[in-house]
Amino acid sequence: MKAVVKTNREKGFELRDVPRPKPGLRDVVIRVKAAAICGSDLNFYVWDKGFCEGLVGSFPFIPGHECAGEVVEIGEAVTHVKLGDHVAFDSHIPCGHCKMCQLGKPHLCQDMGLFGHNIDGCFAEYAMARETGVRVLPEGMTWEQGAMLEPLGVVVRPVFESEVGMSTVCVTGCGPIGQFAIALASALGAYRIYAVDINPMRLELARKNGATDVINSKDYADFSEIILKETGGIDAVIEASGNEHVINEGLHTLLRGARMFMVGNPHGDITIKDPKRYITLGETTIKGNWGRSMFWTWDKAEKALLSGKVNLEHIITHRFPLEKFEEAFEIALSGKGCKVLLIP
Amino acid sequence: MKAVVKTNREKGFELRDVPRPKPGLRDVVIRVKAAAICGSDLNFYVWDKGFCEGLVGSFPFIPGHECAGEVVEIGEAVTHVKLGDHVAFDSHIPCGHCKMCQLGKPHLCQDMGLFGHNIDGCFAEYAMARETGVRVLPEGMTWEQGAMLEPLGVVVRPVFESEVGMSTVCVTGCGPIGQFAIALASALGAYRIYAVDINPMRLELARKNGATDVINSKDYADFSEIILKETGGIDAVIEASGNEHVINEGLHTLLRGARMFMVGNPHGDITIKDPKRYITLGETTIKGNWGRSMFWTWDKAEKALLSGKVNLEHIITHRFPLEKFEEAFEIALSGKGCKVLLIP
Amino acid sequence: MKAVVKTNREKGFELRDVPRPKPGLRDVVIRVKAAAICGSDLNFYVWDKGFCEGLVGSFPFIPGHECAGEVVEIGEAVTHVKLGDHVAFDSHIPCGHCKMCQLGKPHLCQDMGLFGHNIDGCFAEYAMARETGVRVLPEGMTWEQGAMLEPLGVVVRPVFESEVGMSTVCVTGCGPIGQFAIALASALGAYRIYAVDINPMRLELARKNGATDVINSKDYADFSEIILKETGGIDAVIEASGNEHVINEGLHTLLRGARMFMVGNPHGDITIKDPKRYITLGETTIKGNWGRSMFWTWDKAEKALLSGKVNLEHIITHRFPLEKFEEAFEIALSGKGCKVLLIP
Amino acid sequence: MKAVVKTNREKGFELRDVPRPKPGLRDVVIRVKAAAICGSDLNFYVWDKGFCEGLVGSFPFIPGHECAGEVVEIGEAVTHVKLGDHVAFDSHIPCGHCKMCQLGKPHLCQDMGLFGHNIDGCFAEYAMARETGVRVLPEGMTWEQGAMLEPLGVVVRPVFESEVGMSTVCVTGCGPIGQFAIALASALGAYRIYAVDINPMRLELARKNGATDVINSKDYADFSEIILKETGGIDAVIEASGNEHVINEGLHTLLRGARMFMVGNPHGDITIKDPKRYITLGETTIKGNWGRSMFWTWDKAEKALLSGKVNLEHIITHRFPLEKFEEAFEIALSGKGCKVLLIP
Repeated sequence: MKAVVKTNREKGFELRDVPRPKPGLRDVVIRVKAAAICGSDLNFYVWDKGFCEGLVGSFPFIPGHECAGEVVEIGEAVTHVKLGDHVAFDSHIPCGHCKMCQLGKPHLCQDMGLFGHNIDGCFAEYAMARETGVRVLPEGMTWEQGAMLEPLGVVVRPVFESEVGMSTVCVTGCGPIGQFAIALASALGAYRIYAVDINPMRLELARKNGATDVINSKDYADFSEIILKETGGIDAVIEASGNEHVINEGLHTLLRGARMFMVGNPHGDITIKDPKRYITLGETTIKGNWGRSMFWTWDKAEKALLSGKVNLEHIITHRFPLEKFEEAFEIALSGKGCKVLLIP
Repeated sequence: MKAVVKTNREKGFELRDVPRPKPGLRDVVIRVKAAAICGSDLNFYVWDKGFCEGLVGSFPFIPGHECAGEVVEIGEAVTHVKLGDHVAFDSHIPCGHCKMCQLGKPHLCQDMGLFGHNIDGCFAEYAMARETGVRVLPEGMTWEQGAMLEPLGVVVRPVFESEVGMSTVCVTGCGPIGQFAIALASALGAYRIYAVDINPMRLELARKNGATDVINSKDYADFSEIILKETGGIDAVIEASGNEHVINEGLHTLLRGARMFMVGNPHGDITIKDPKRYITLGETTIKGNWGRSMFWTWDKAEKALLSGKVNLEHIITHRFPLEKFEEAFEIALSGKGCKVLLIP
Repeated sequence: MKAVVKTNREKGFELRDVPRPKPGLRDVVIRVKAAAICGSDLNFYVWDKGFCEGLVGSFPFIPGHECAGEVVEIGEAVTHVKLGDHVAFDSHIPCGHCKMCQLGKPHLCQDMGLFGHNIDGCFAEYAMARETGVRVLPEGMTWEQGAMLEPLGVVVRPVFESEVGMSTVCVTGCGPIGQFAIALASALGAYRIYAVDINPMRLELARKNGATDVINSKDYADFSEIILKETGGIDAVIEASGNEHVINEGLHTLLRGARMFMVGNPHGDITIKDPKRYITLGETTIKGNWGRSMFWTWDKAEKALLSGKVNLEHIITHRFPLEKFEEAFEIALSGKGCKVLLIP
Repeated sequence: MKAVVKTNREKGFELRDVPRPKPGLRDVVIRVKAAAICGSDLNFYVWDKGFCEGLVGSFPFIPGHECAGEVVEIGEAVTHVKLGDHVAFDSHIPCGHCKMCQLGKPHLCQDMGLFGHNIDGCFAEYAMARETGVRVLPEGMTWEQGAMLEPLGVVVRPVFESEVGMSTVCVTGCGPIGQFAIALASALGAYRIYAVDINPMRLELARKNGATDVINSKDYADFSEIILKETGGIDAVIEASGNEHVINEGLHTLLRGARMFMVGNPHGDITIKDPKRYITLGETTIKGNWGRSMFWTWDKAEKALLSGKVNLEHIITHRFPLEKFEEAFEIALSGKGCKVLLIP
């Protein structure tokens, strides 16, 4: 089969012919119908050393972990997925036995397998996953919607835990994850949604996805001043930039007793300014967020898409055949698009 | 009446004769029976500029905000406190009208009056508070217990929110606030309590208050290594040191999905090491904590003391008459005691 | 001034000329601009003995407790409301001193004053309330919206606590309270909303307010069968009928671990069928709901109306001048309308 | 091997020689070291038709579902349990695939297998369970403690969710489940614990397990009057009697906004008296409780026993060899003991 492959620590991927995966006892093989590029795939593409080392296994490997497809082969012990099923994969593969798995929190597994990182992913004609991570798509869901359940799922818990209903929230960083956060917050009845980014095109998308107010932080680096002036302080920040200055500005916009969810990945250390004021006396909560709760998160994401309350029109901006992966990655890197799909 | 007074920005206080306060319509005057020295009083004593400026009003003022006493005079409009009542004061005086007060969170008041800071406090023979901040003591409570409700109250919400029951927790910083946290966590059924400090005497008190394991961080600066090795990771940190290195070590000891409560006040900025690992991927929660929820917190603190489940034997180490305030403050500053009382 | 007055235990009210209220120290008098009829007003009108005795004070009294108006006179000690302010009243007047008030839960006050029940209400040209229960309306809010904040507020906590976002819920009983629940659940992103009633006109309104599925329980008394068949079980019931059979059917529709909020008032005792199955083994939660949390609830209700996410077009069906109160009450009793307003 | 067997719908069990179970791929066989009699075993013994029909599979079957033992044989695919391990079983065997399992709530599984009910249990020399339901005991835990983890686990969630710390709670029904609730509430820092039962011996045990106040409801059927008079209302009831009158009395003792957990199984329907007052206006929460959250509950139960904070001295009252099962069951039925063990 054709597959996009990472062969070494240099920039770029290669398109290769590789053997189609053969399922083990509990594995499921799909014909990939839609796959999407995530920020971590960009890191693999350019080989951001700080990000990649430690996360990937051995070379060569197939990247990609957001996808949907049709089941074409199953292992002998697979009982709840059958040939022809339309499915998506959770990219996190919990071990089932560590302390966190045993406490009912597999999304915090201490020995997590990572699809498209340390095992082969989905930028290929066929992909394979363990049955426990396979989610059968609800009737009526398209391949593209199915491929978006994994990244939309990243913001489901933070947006629900932000209690956005009739609240004022701010989403900092309007890449695909930020756009999903805006669209979901809007679907859940947020009163007012501020979107902050440095890319005018993405702010325009943010508006279309439901942001009521947008701020270009290239023009207004100290954007907290604007938000405080207009609102008196906000209820929650969904932080999807990973940027130290933006994180501090986010903290400054909060009301007392309010919350920031850190969804973006900061590089290196970060310095929090005046934590006595902005954390202790303000009784601020900062909460990290990584994965999807299996499968509560999926259930919510599916309903958000099926109901049309979150729609993908202003999130998926480009689609490329697998062969044109370089064009796809260059667009994704350029910031000229938002979610970019590969259709194998 | 006799009162300890702060007269200027130099180190030290003065003992002066000042007029006894006259109650306004809704005020309550008490004969102070026991008062206690808080860390902020030490800051006023030595005049820690960074801490004090902005917090205090005009000079001279009477410091002290932890006390109990007997009601000796009330304003005309006071309806629920009467002469002879035994009472304590909450040092926080919410405005009742700001956004947070209106949302039912007066402990986060945006225009908080501060007893002993910007209005006269309790290091005096008599003290005055507004009726809304006065708490009538339950039957059987001593003056000393009454004076401890305010500082014990500081840890009530963080310890309850830590869900310490059959959990492993760590208290970093074993001053009076840390000791209260240890004693309360023990009363609420914590499985294992680590106490961390650099003062051997305080670690000894920690053990008496219920710590199951103590670590002197002068000997083991990277104490997270020990705790991780012994426990595999813990459920909650109550941070009462305000120290940057200790905060980072605290974060390193946490299990995935666990919590740190910041009760101590950091000075200046703090740098969080590798937040991608220790906050985002770990799904860590950091929550600031300041005041007491009125009067839910008080109800819990009263029951903790009345039941004897939290006892003060290993927390109150010294008592001085008001006149010997300098001796009291020098002991408190020296770290040779724990909670130090003034008995006017 | 003109006022609608209850003079005795017979059916009906009288229109009388009575003195305009004079404010005490902390009272606020308004010129009523819009008032609305609640179910409890209907009970007073027809004198439903079981409901009324114990709730009302002495005769004569002015009923009505949902209103908005302009401040025309204030007591000397009033500090945060001024002449000309547009305001609404919370009908619950907490004592401020009982155990529940002290625990920060004034909406559960053990000695609650009830505007329009045991003190004079708002079916009059002028009405008076204590400053602590007065809410200044946000800019841009109409009188009619202001008058709806109190009844909309009744469902705010149950709908928020139902976590309706991308959930399937059922509202049983589609009077004004049920309609508000449907409209708010829809605004907060409910995936699917079942509405159940015996009145076709109200089911039609329910659909307009956001119900995705309606069931006439006159035709389908055992409506749980339909809902279970179509959904496999639902996440929450907002029970606004007070009817024993409907409550049991509501319990039967729930998924395991799901919730029912009892907003409607049952008359007399109710028999729960097979609680072992429907409560214990199902791990069902049943929660009663009465008042509004002050003023968190108001903040949410204001934002729901101001944003247009909840609109009143299909909830307010009739408006009458104060003089035509009999016509208004007969319409409200007939079930031919939904929310009926009196405009003094 | 020797096993206690239920052969038909008559009263009683038989001791038989039956084949030792052979493990399937993922099964674990243990040598039973301690087993305990549960209320449901008593129902099987006397054949309480209403309880038993529908729960049991075919005859003959081996009852018993609370046990600990040593692993003596494992299936080929078992990876995390090994020969010689000391283990206990959760009697609930979730399917892993239903809606509730998929939502991360396997304790609410819609297709639950029941050890000792519809598959062979542990009143035998050997017993078999699926690997996913096997819990390796922590070091230092005795066989008897291990066998108590399952029934202690029944009360873990209700007692934790009751937030008993410095609260006043009431446990109605002081059989083994009630005794565990009392002991755990005491370990978690309850301020005051009322115990209600009709059996003086069990009230005596309740006191030893930590109850501060005991009431014999044979003498005081309307025990809510006593509790209200002494406390003004309590924070939570753990209901372990299943009795209609007791449930109503429990509701009457609650403060506004308080909670009742239904752990006991009511027989047939129950009538709630005046739910308008005791549920709706009181904003009472009633929550059903069935199983253990896997394995969060087990982690808490293990720590409660290992720490000695819950001890079994006043809960386990009798021990019999397997052969004397009839004596054991007669004692358990007589109410003359509390927890009764069978030692195969």
